[in-house]
Amino acid sequence: MKYIWMILLSLICSMSAAWAGDDTPTVLTNKDAIALVQSHADYVWTLVCAVLVFFMQAGFAMVEAGFTRAKNAVNIMMKNLMDFSMGTISFWAIGFGLMFGASKTGFFGTTGFFLSDFEIGGDPWVLAFWMFQVVFAATAATIVSGAMAERTKFTAYLVYTACVTALIYPIFGSWAWGSLLNGSGWLEGLGFIDFAGSTVVHSVGGWAALAGAMVLGPRLGKYTKDGRIKPILGHNIPLAALGVFILWVGWFGFNPGSTTAATKDIAMIFVNTNLAAAAGAVLAMIVSWMKFGKPEVGMSLNGALAGLVGITAGCANVTPGSAVIIGAIAGILVVFSVLFFERVKIDDPVGAISVHGVCGAWGTLGAGIFNIGGTSLKILSVQCIGILACFVWTFAMAYALFKIIDATMGLRVSAEEELEGLDATEHGGNAYPDFTTINHSGGYSGGTGGTGEETSAAYSTKLANQT
Amino acid sequence: MKYIWMILLSLICSMSAAWAGDDTPTVLTNKDAIALVQSHADYVWTLVCAVLVFFMQAGFAMVEAGFTRAKNAVNIMMKNLMDFSMGTISFWAIGFGLMFGASKTGFFGTTGFFLSDFEIGGDPWVLAFWMFQVVFAATAATIVSGAMAERTKFTAYLVYTACVTALIYPIFGSWAWGSLLNGSGWLEGLGFIDFAGSTVVHSVGGWAALAGAMVLGPRLGKYTKDGRIKPILGHNIPLAALGVFILWVGWFGFNPGSTTAATKDIAMIFVNTNLAAAAGAVLAMIVSWMKFGKPEVGMSLNGALAGLVGITAGCANVTPGSAVIIGAIAGILVVFSVLFFERVKIDDPVGAISVHGVCGAWGTLGAGIFNIGGTSLKILSVQCIGILACFVWTFAMAYALFKIIDATMGLRVSAEEELEGLDATEHGGNAYPDFTTINHSGGYSGGTGGTGEETSAAYSTKLANQT
Amino acid sequence: MKYIWMILLSLICSMSAAWAGDDTPTVLTNKDAIALVQSHADYVWTLVCAVLVFFMQAGFAMVEAGFTRAKNAVNIMMKNLMDFSMGTISFWAIGFGLMFGASKTGFFGTTGFFLSDFEIGGDPWVLAFWMFQVVFAATAATIVSGAMAERTKFTAYLVYTACVTALIYPIFGSWAWGSLLNGSGWLEGLGFIDFAGSTVVHSVGGWAALAGAMVLGPRLGKYTKDGRIKPILGHNIPLAALGVFILWVGWFGFNPGSTTAATKDIAMIFVNTNLAAAAGAVLAMIVSWMKFGKPEVGMSLNGALAGLVGITAGCANVTPGSAVIIGAIAGILVVFSVLFFERVKIDDPVGAISVHGVCGAWGTLGAGIFNIGGTSLKILSVQCIGILACFVWTFAMAYALFKIIDATMGLRVSAEEELEGLDATEHGGNAYPDFTTINHSGGYSGGTGGTGEETSAAYSTKLANQT
Repeated sequence: MKYIWMILLSLICSMSAAWAGDDTPTVLTNKDAIALVQSHADYVWTLVCAVLVFFMQAGFAMVEAGFTRAKNAVNIMMKNLMDFSMGTISFWAIGFGLMFGASKTGFFGTTGFFLSDFEIGGDPWVLAFWMFQVVFAATAATIVSGAMAERTKFTAYLVYTACVTALIYPIFGSWAWGSLLNGSGWLEGLGFIDFAGSTVVHSVGGWAALAGAMVLGPRLGKYTKDGRIKPILGHNIPLAALGVFILWVGWFGFNPGSTTAATKDIAMIFVNTNLAAAAGAVLAMIVSWMKFGKPEVGMSLNGALAGLVGITAGCANVTPGSAVIIGAIAGILVVFSVLFFERVKIDDPVGAISVHGVCGAWGTLGAGIFNIGGTSLKILSVQCIGILACFVWTFAMAYALFKIIDATMGLRVSAEEELEGLDATEHGGNAYPDFTTINHSGGYSGGTGGTGEETSAAYSTKLANQT
Repeated sequence: MKYIWMILLSLICSMSAAWAGDDTPTVLTNKDAIALVQSHADYVWTLVCAVLVFFMQAGFAMVEAGFTRAKNAVNIMMKNLMDFSMGTISFWAIGFGLMFGASKTGFFGTTGFFLSDFEIGGDPWVLAFWMFQVVFAATAATIVSGAMAERTKFTAYLVYTACVTALIYPIFGSWAWGSLLNGSGWLEGLGFIDFAGSTVVHSVGGWAALAGAMVLGPRLGKYTKDGRIKPILGHNIPLAALGVFILWVGWFGFNPGSTTAATKDIAMIFVNTNLAAAAGAVLAMIVSWMKFGKPEVGMSLNGALAGLVGITAGCANVTPGSAVIIGAIAGILVVFSVLFFERVKIDDPVGAISVHGVCGAWGTLGAGIFNIGGTSLKILSVQCIGILACFVWTFAMAYALFKIIDATMGLRVSAEEELEGLDATEHGGNAYPDFTTINHSGGYSGGTGGTGEETSAAYSTKLANQT
Repeated sequence: MKYIWMILLSLICSMSAAWAGDDTPTVLTNKDAIALVQSHADYVWTLVCAVLVFFMQAGFAMVEAGFTRAKNAVNIMMKNLMDFSMGTISFWAIGFGLMFGASKTGFFGTTGFFLSDFEIGGDPWVLAFWMFQVVFAATAATIVSGAMAERTKFTAYLVYTACVTALIYPIFGSWAWGSLLNGSGWLEGLGFIDFAGSTVVHSVGGWAALAGAMVLGPRLGKYTKDGRIKPILGHNIPLAALGVFILWVGWFGFNPGSTTAATKDIAMIFVNTNLAAAAGAVLAMIVSWMKFGKPEVGMSLNGALAGLVGITAGCANVTPGSAVIIGAIAGILVVFSVLFFERVKIDDPVGAISVHGVCGAWGTLGAGIFNIGGTSLKILSVQCIGILACFVWTFAMAYALFKIIDATMGLRVSAEEELEGLDATEHGGNAYPDFTTINHSGGYSGGTGGTGEETSAAYSTKLANQT
């Protein structure tokens, strides 16, 4: 009983208003108090989901590092740390306002930069909403990192990633989701279905990744002179698998959290998300088994991700049975897509274009086909318009941006740097100095470190000279 | 104020019904609205806990990989990915209906397969409940993986794991927990206490693991010809430790989440879970120190897990002081149990039988002994009946299943394959191609990969031949 | 509708009281029922945040292991497992009572040891609160581990860590936070602002780490005979980066969870926490780039942590714009601080003193400077008193404790043991037996394990002799 009164008191305080009670409904009626408690649940739910989506950054970092070579692992950690950190700052300064600010045209918003219109005295919901959206923006940015791994200049990557979170992602996002806060978008006006972002987040990332991989060209050694594919293996499969499990965890924030409200709807979204991921993994394993003679781990892991990307658009408006089908098809699709891009000499070390671009498009179409309220030619047309608009906008913008970067500051490291590894040349570091590693340019390279003299860490040398 | 009205509006929408208010209690009274908000909190709580329990899959994968050899790490990732993925599909199709469907006999349910009775228009709670239960079913399945590591055929594992989640686990589960949804079980009818599944989940996994390890026989090189034990070390202790931390995190969903309701009861369950884990780790360290002369890391890590398994049955009905005792005894027990099974030539690479089987049984007994409402001979008898029923059902079913698999498709890989490692032979992969590793069949084996020609990845070879 | 009545029923049960309804307000009025639902949300929020903070233990373990050498990784896992496990037991037995028990003096509490006053029949909130506090206490303890890595006796570490969680941390904590439950503290009486513990948790850990590093002295090989710095590289950068991502995740429990109530306030705390971390990472990268010529990964990762520590004190009472500034300054500060301590020959392998001690002090000052309600000389003075009190209490107590340990049982391992690595000498283990590692005492050391005879695991030898 005593505790109940403490809670009552805290309710009152959090309102900065007097509590009314049953019989004197002056300031806070029971109806208002119930709504307040529900709103607290909405805050908790949305922000816990934001934590899960943030955790996906660790997942992406582990998947990308695990599927690439040891000599570039430091660079990959730096890219993943920085696309979130710089993404946070640029989405705060510019992106959020473009995406969710008041919009007269339906093409981008023009208020809310630096959260300036919202800070003191404003509705705190804007802050909760911002937190949920910033982790989405960073997801779109980090997807690109994988396809451009092992050969991109770090400075070029920083410039690019700031542009994605400040401009490319938010402007497309405003077309489909702008009205979630106080804007409005032309695409949602048509009735476009993309509940949690198969297109808005994943295809944006995937098509930008495609542009990046095309402008960069393949990694040295990926193709022989006569054009045959030479596989480049990832250096740490348990790390990659951990990354996939973490991404699966994060998706339970990504999809159900997109309600941004604690309602019963989240249950079906959870079930759909999980079923599609499972079906994607199983089918990708089976297809890889049929094609290669053995169940391949990289394809199976990507199959789970494909299923997750696929169900993202329709997770709130298809049945669990349809979720299994959507995920299964995504799992099949991803294997053929990876092989296709490899064959046409677009080198994507982690399969990001296939997982996020291709399966994002499939999922958006699937959300129309399996729509719980029935489908129609109109619905499918709108879904196709959205898919196409995303491809045109993102690919064109990203391709132009990469070309400009390439012409000015340079997009790709030199051949010597690529062979030595980006860890040493870009960061003066070494991810595994205590282990004997095999340098992929050919010979064996013993680790460095230990007694110190042989280290290649940039700061070590400087330090040693200081004292 | 504006926001409160938005929330009110969303409440109304989520009910698809008009809001009544204080003075016109026609459709949704305040009492109903309060119950609705509470139910939203229950959904959030149950589903967030499902995420935590799902995360345990990553924990199990890391523990199993860390405690075994580098040459089998890809295989372990595939097994852990697939026991969850196939488990999801088979629990959706069959297991959930057997466990929680309407049951006339008290021995298994007969409705709810494919979630078919629940989909559109049904109570969404069933979906939330399914999500929480599917991650439990997959936990039981994945426990088995560790005890059978490094020598089991991948195809055989797939068949087996589908059977656990479709049949063995759900049928026993229906005896103890069937009434949670709409069934009823003979064991709970007796008053069996197993709040979160020391027996229902962990002992089922542990005894199936025992059957598997017995049918398989020990790994090559585990015992000398004259019968002496030759330890086989795990290849990555930080990964194993990360796995244990993740499992500990997940257990905060596993135990308190078993309330499936946001109530004050979760607080004591949290405290008990944490205290038992801590006591288990400390005691296992002390015992290993006394027995081996040094504080051993594998035993200490397993001690934490032993404490967690031990408190799972009684977490809601013992005091924190009792939780410390239950965890401490589990921590002592696990060391002696691991040594016992090693001595009787049952080779369990990660200690799964001891952690989950033995400590699961102990925890179930402990829940009776330390029952907060007092204990009695009747309570203890029922606990023993449950423990025994679990052992008989699970061990017999699993043993028969493994024998059938062995006689038909084969359960164990060939000696040559085992020596080479399952990564190469079962999956055409290599977990660490950039590192120089030591092949446990004796000599040194340089990593492969890099320039590509020397890779053993199945899909690489196929690929190379395509172009 | 049926479900609503189930919920109502569960509400009633959880109250062990009859439900009153709108028209017969005898036992549980609507007002009471609303307060009860809100309190359930508070429990869920506080305990979910406790899970996130617990997860930080995994983060600290990965950061410490990643930034140190392979030959000490087992020891680091054991330290991190044990500081939480022993910390849990000692905080339960002693620490919690000292920190939050009833206090007449304002200097420490004297009730609540072993949770004895709270167990059966008590307010369950105490248990939820304990759970949130025990993970904080363990955080303070584990910070010390990093600064003392690679040369501390394991037994000495166990003694020390129990004292931190039982005495050093709780007594200081009672000065600043004692009144949160039922005590009172002299520092909070002055108006000291430290919302989530920049000083109470992080500086306590950091200054104890300083004392430890000073009493221990630098690692062998860290400085040449003529006093030049010889860098000792960390052995696994992806693991360290994973640790930083996990810590960032955990901080979303650490800071917003410190409300211990589900209110709208958590939104701004989330945003501030994230912005400060991002700004810290970006600025540390820039500064390291300017000083060393390349963007250094260790500094950048520590920059994110510095930003997080910095915003911990003020997260609830500064604007998002101020959070960016606080984080940015922390990111700059941490680079100069790490270099300073390295130059004055205080060897801190992971930068714990700088990240937690120095940036904790800065954040506490920053909370006064950027206070949302305005600042004043009085506020700043009180902040300085708190910072100073923390330094004097913690450094003096920890220094004395380490000196006593050193004089009695010994604090540091022998030079031979340090060169061989603590894994073998303290634990009879080997973190990576399947890999060829480089022994930092000079030559190459092949991994051990495999066929078993060559293993150094303590328990293996014993085992082999038993049979």
